Amino acid sequence: MTDLRTAVIGLGSMGLGAALSLARAGFAVAGVDLAQAPRDELAAAGGSPAASPAEAARDADVVFVYVVNAAQTRAVLFGDQGATAAARPGTIFVLCPTMPPDDTIAIAHDLHGAGMVAIDAPVSGGIAKARDGQISIMASGPAAAFDRIQPALDAIAARVFRLGDQIGAGSRMKLINQLLAGVHIAAMAEAMVLAAKSGLDLATVQQVITECAGNSWMFQNRGPQVVSGDYTPFSAVDIFVKDLGIVTEAAQSLGSPVPLADASLDLYRAASKAGLGREADAAIAKILAEKAGATLP
Amino acid sequence: MTDLRTAVIGLGSMGLGAALSLARAGFAVAGVDLAQAPRDELAAAGGSPAASPAEAARDADVVFVYVVNAAQTRAVLFGDQGATAAARPGTIFVLCPTMPPDDTIAIAHDLHGAGMVAIDAPVSGGIAKARDGQISIMASGPAAAFDRIQPALDAIAARVFRLGDQIGAGSRMKLINQLLAGVHIAAMAEAMVLAAKSGLDLATVQQVITECAGNSWMFQNRGPQVVSGDYTPFSAVDIFVKDLGIVTEAAQSLGSPVPLADASLDLYRAASKAGLGREADAAIAKILAEKAGATLP
Repeated sequence: MTDLRTAVIGLGSMGLGAALSLARAGFAVAGVDLAQAPRDELAAAGGSPAASPAEAARDADVVFVYVVNAAQTRAVLFGDQGATAAARPGTIFVLCPTMPPDDTIAIAHDLHGAGMVAIDAPVSGGIAKARDGQISIMASGPAAAFDRIQPALDAIAARVFRLGDQIGAGSRMKLINQLLAGVHIAAMAEAMVLAAKSGLDLATVQQVITECAGNSWMFQNRGPQVVSGDYTPFSAVDIFVKDLGIVTEAAQSLGSPVPLADASLDLYRAASKAGLGREADAAIAKILAEKAGATLP
Repeated sequence: MTDLRTAVIGLGSMGLGAALSLARAGFAVAGVDLAQAPRDELAAAGGSPAASPAEAARDADVVFVYVVNAAQTRAVLFGDQGATAAARPGTIFVLCPTMPPDDTIAIAHDLHGAGMVAIDAPVSGGIAKARDGQISIMASGPAAAFDRIQPALDAIAARVFRLGDQIGAGSRMKLINQLLAGVHIAAMAEAMVLAAKSGLDLATVQQVITECAGNSWMFQNRGPQVVSGDYTPFSAVDIFVKDLGIVTEAAQSLGSPVPLADASLDLYRAASKAGLGREADAAIAKILAEKAGATLP
């Protein structure tokens, strides 16, 4: 089981969580990132920081790609010092970024052309669950590849949803999740600002709604940021500028109306334009509060 | 404890659930409704159907008002054969409808003028929880009145949030809940239609999202209606035409922007206009599906 050699490319909050979870479960883990701090944290946990995607992938049986978007994925796979330059044929690449399904399909196609195996495997769950090895994975790809890497998936995820063997299914499911997640954060922000204007105590609102039919995973998770005024990012405004951008473009190309995703994306874009792009996604509440003339904590 | 005599005016799904819960807990319960079926069900459970609000309230210590809106509340309290014509001075009226806070305050004022006590007490939870005595109540009003009726509240609710002694606080909190609930149903519908257009299996979407960050109370509760195509109402489209109408008007008067509630209300109104007003609120998915050219179950 632990003879499976693993690599993680991209040690941001989610990728580092996966790498630490793999190390904790006893897997050999090579990891690469431009930043030094997560490389040091991985080394301290028994992993092996690598100098490039190629070096990280050289001895790996499975490579988790945890960068932000399709362009970065292409760069770390096929660019200078890219992983496919060094990986052995048959290495399994697990593609975790949220990407347009067409990009995921195209990248998988190019991986196949380089003699590799691809799994479409976007993730959900946030930093805390990533570090605990408790994320959810929405995945599609060849069953044999899944079976081979199952022990590694079990180390990083509480739930692995296997959505068939077609690359693209995982990415499509992730877009549905991001639509809902992005809209629910925006709804939380809108509700909190209205509550503030109504004279309600926001900590009480958080407590009451969490136990009522208006609750959502995001209300419960992000509401406390508006209540406290601490917008240290779990996930940044700009992530939803990207993800809801992908959602609304995919919806448009399919002719499927998404009025709530559209309205939510407007808020994330306004927040990013106002300089809040790197704050927590819940900081879109500040945009609404300014329009409302409401005072938030 | 069970010497508290209770009455319920309005035996719709929520009111009947409260009346049955009170009867089950051993309280004397008089109940009134225009429809015969819920009166019969109350009688079978040991309650006493009454011919009018006045008759129901005559011997009651506490009267739960479970009609739909402010106009109906005024009618059953102050109209022909209204409850205040027969109730003893000091009877406690628990106002459960979702109403604009200003209406709740005005009705409570008129109850005071008639020698009665008012509690502002909108509820949340749906039919199943109502019948199990497990709803949540967002309530404000005089502490002494709360203390007196606490055993009856305990019979119908799992949680009673006491939001201070000012009438209006309960109604304001309920609007926040309805904003979120109404938006979350609309987001669910939008996501399900996009999923259908994307070629995803909707039962799988329901299963996956429920365990991911895109989940909401409403996604979990209403999603199965879109998956099955059974729109037997838990709560009807027209309830959210009303409730989001109250939310958006209150928001406008406070100058607080609610773009997601606005976009959601458009969907409920379109569904109502298309003749779906009495179907389940999740039937707004049909409006989006038609625009998308998507086939739902």
